[in-house]
Amino acid sequence: MTEEHHENQDENLESKLQKIISLLQRYKLVEGFVRLQDTPEPELIESIIQKQNLANLRGALDKLHPADIARILEMIPLEDRLIVWRFVKAEHDGEVLLEVSDAVRQTLIEDMDSEELVAAAEQLDADEIADLAPDLPSDVMEDVFRALPMEEREQLRAAMSFSEDAVGALMDFDVIIVRGNVRIEVVLRYLRRLGELPDHTDQLFVVDRNEHLQGTLLLNRLLVSDPNTTVTEVMTPKTVKFLPDDKAEQATDAFERYDLITAAVVSPEGKLLGRVTVNAVIDFMREKADLEARNQVGLSEEEDLFAPVWKSVRNRWAWLAINLVTAFFASRVIGLFENSIEKLVALAALMPIVAGVGGNSGNQTITMIVRALALGQVSQGSTLKLITKEISVSIVNGIVWGGLVGVFTYAIYQNIQLGLVMSLAMLLNLLLAAFVGVLIPLTRKKLGRDPALGSSVMITAVTDSGGFFIFLGLATLFLL
Amino acid sequence: MTEEHHENQDENLESKLQKIISLLQRYKLVEGFVRLQDTPEPELIESIIQKQNLANLRGALDKLHPADIARILEMIPLEDRLIVWRFVKAEHDGEVLLEVSDAVRQTLIEDMDSEELVAAAEQLDADEIADLAPDLPSDVMEDVFRALPMEEREQLRAAMSFSEDAVGALMDFDVIIVRGNVRIEVVLRYLRRLGELPDHTDQLFVVDRNEHLQGTLLLNRLLVSDPNTTVTEVMTPKTVKFLPDDKAEQATDAFERYDLITAAVVSPEGKLLGRVTVNAVIDFMREKADLEARNQVGLSEEEDLFAPVWKSVRNRWAWLAINLVTAFFASRVIGLFENSIEKLVALAALMPIVAGVGGNSGNQTITMIVRALALGQVSQGSTLKLITKEISVSIVNGIVWGGLVGVFTYAIYQNIQLGLVMSLAMLLNLLLAAFVGVLIPLTRKKLGRDPALGSSVMITAVTDSGGFFIFLGLATLFLL
Repeated sequence: MTEEHHENQDENLESKLQKIISLLQRYKLVEGFVRLQDTPEPELIESIIQKQNLANLRGALDKLHPADIARILEMIPLEDRLIVWRFVKAEHDGEVLLEVSDAVRQTLIEDMDSEELVAAAEQLDADEIADLAPDLPSDVMEDVFRALPMEEREQLRAAMSFSEDAVGALMDFDVIIVRGNVRIEVVLRYLRRLGELPDHTDQLFVVDRNEHLQGTLLLNRLLVSDPNTTVTEVMTPKTVKFLPDDKAEQATDAFERYDLITAAVVSPEGKLLGRVTVNAVIDFMREKADLEARNQVGLSEEEDLFAPVWKSVRNRWAWLAINLVTAFFASRVIGLFENSIEKLVALAALMPIVAGVGGNSGNQTITMIVRALALGQVSQGSTLKLITKEISVSIVNGIVWGGLVGVFTYAIYQNIQLGLVMSLAMLLNLLLAAFVGVLIPLTRKKLGRDPALGSSVMITAVTDSGGFFIFLGLATLFLL
Repeated sequence: MTEEHHENQDENLESKLQKIISLLQRYKLVEGFVRLQDTPEPELIESIIQKQNLANLRGALDKLHPADIARILEMIPLEDRLIVWRFVKAEHDGEVLLEVSDAVRQTLIEDMDSEELVAAAEQLDADEIADLAPDLPSDVMEDVFRALPMEEREQLRAAMSFSEDAVGALMDFDVIIVRGNVRIEVVLRYLRRLGELPDHTDQLFVVDRNEHLQGTLLLNRLLVSDPNTTVTEVMTPKTVKFLPDDKAEQATDAFERYDLITAAVVSPEGKLLGRVTVNAVIDFMREKADLEARNQVGLSEEEDLFAPVWKSVRNRWAWLAINLVTAFFASRVIGLFENSIEKLVALAALMPIVAGVGGNSGNQTITMIVRALALGQVSQGSTLKLITKEISVSIVNGIVWGGLVGVFTYAIYQNIQLGLVMSLAMLLNLLLAAFVGVLIPLTRKKLGRDPALGSSVMITAVTDSGGFFIFLGLATLFLL
């Protein structure tokens, strides 16, 4: 980040947004007015005003950090967004595209021609271009590729080869390397000659002549060391490093646990390839948290708040369809017992309680297990212990809540047997919820899947159908 | 972080855990054996083996980073945890206590006496002690407080005065300050004299004689600047800064948007109070994500995976109770229509479909809004637009899925009117879900509450009771 952007970072985003919106309104007002007049005269008073409006809007945008522009673009409806986007300084285009959400990025890219896109991409580093690549038309990517210097082409090719959740995808190439046998004084002189260090440089990487990583030299150490010692004497020899194919999740864990700012990425042979910075890690964490939240309710993509309706419908389609199937299944389970319900209609009113509380309890269990898995708190040997514990919790809950519900049921329907059946069904469905709530995420994890994906829908499907079956089955056995 | 911990950070956590567990098993085995023998003879062969076992366990633990020890303690059952905890080097106690989850921390603290606790706390900085303070007995806190030097006492008092979600709670006091009028060369000499810089120092803070913040001097700039220029010439004058009472969420946003490593915290008068580091921000983000996930299903606290059953029961209590009340309410809604169900028992089998799909769709809406609020994408003026969009999506979904469900219903029950009522009820319940799904989080946000808390339970309550009422009501009107 360069300093020009720092200018008004302490101002509130909402107030920046309001400023842009009010300038935009003024611009749109005059624009509409000019169009209404439909006059060929170019020296109209409105057009002078409009020039001023434009200059104001441009000026306000120029003063904003690209990340702020990105946020503002996400917050305004599509039509306004495209007007504002056109007035963003071309040299900020690349960074803004990097910062916006995937959904909004698409709307912006659709509005740009190939030349603009190539120009925007060329402002970025190889690893950043790789992040944009999936959204860019292939002819644009070809042009970008051809325009890059040899070394960066290699980097871009490398960066694009990693899967999205690998460390390689978080990596950048902004490393400063030094040799172990030089003196600190020489390093200091070398840095001064460079004139500028890459953002977030907290350590230099010490390599041998084969580019194998020997250790790292923290700037903090560099600054306080005797200029006459050698790099080897003050470097940290054993340092956190990753392979490009390591899971990104592993890197974020290490950054969190060991409080890192940057870490080296090396080839299996130990050759330095690049580095991961804490900011790439933060972005990944945010995206991951976002993905998890959306996955649990079955939103398949990031959704632009102002997306056209058909896009939103498509985004939510798959999951509603699955839900409909499970709901139909539950409905057929009830259908099996229509005779029983006809004889004792209270069953219809009571059955959602059994299903609902079971679902809620199952969701608590599954959430706890998913969180523990995400935080790496579940070791391979603890499955049985976890099931035992959850079952125990369910038994307690089942007895207490089941008992309470039984009493209420008796109070309402004056039917002791019905109350007992209700209590027993609650207990059994809570046990089912606990058992399945532990097993679903652990099994998915073992199969290498995301333990959170759709967990909520699955557990609810089990506790609904299971709850109806248990309750209506018991009622049919004992009451009729 | 000092280098001694770096030693084996590239080793996998699971393998570290397995090593500790196997050493622990060996220790426990012999311990059990010795107890069985019940012999007073101290020179037993077992006790020699046991000494070796102990030394091995201690040695393995000593080599681990405190953060790794913390993770391992979280992953093993209570009984083993306390054995391992006793063998952790006393000088690591403080850091381990900081790193473990709240729930596990309690189990560790319960196992320590006051002296050990005071010793552990004294290894920590004032801001870290403040993090532990809520879990420490008050007599321990008094002792710790008394043992601190004057300056740190002040810091501790300050740190403890901030609410948990304020920037002040993330702040530490490890700032290096310099004056603007000194030359870079002098700064370099000053740093060398300090001998060690605080972790994560990426910039020095430039203050005037009243300790008012003038700007910051990035180490990256410091290293490449001409030693004869003054600090003022190379410092960044306008820098991101926070007030201690700013929302922590605001700081995490800024760190993410502007890719910061550290940022200054100043008093309303502009006096430098401390700094926030990116690592405090990451920890906060993790905890926040964790809190959100738990909040949605009503787990009131972090839960130790191996907590005693009664503790887990208590943790999940409140929400199940709320859920039970809403389920009872829904049940009473059905109870209103028992006559209708008696006449047409198919209603009982169909009503959960209407409620279920409505709940699912509502959860999608609410999750999207909550995410957008968390990412700051919702501006004050967009409520109406959001409702309009969600309603439109619901109309499309309602027509498509409602139509489909109507056809299936007809296919199963051979009753056209029933199919039509089913379709209409689906549509109406989806509309209700969209409307409430937007309104709940936006209203809570406006009232200054957490928009995520319990959102899932609330929307489900509305779509269940609402769905039953709409469907059974329509059926009673048109079919009977």
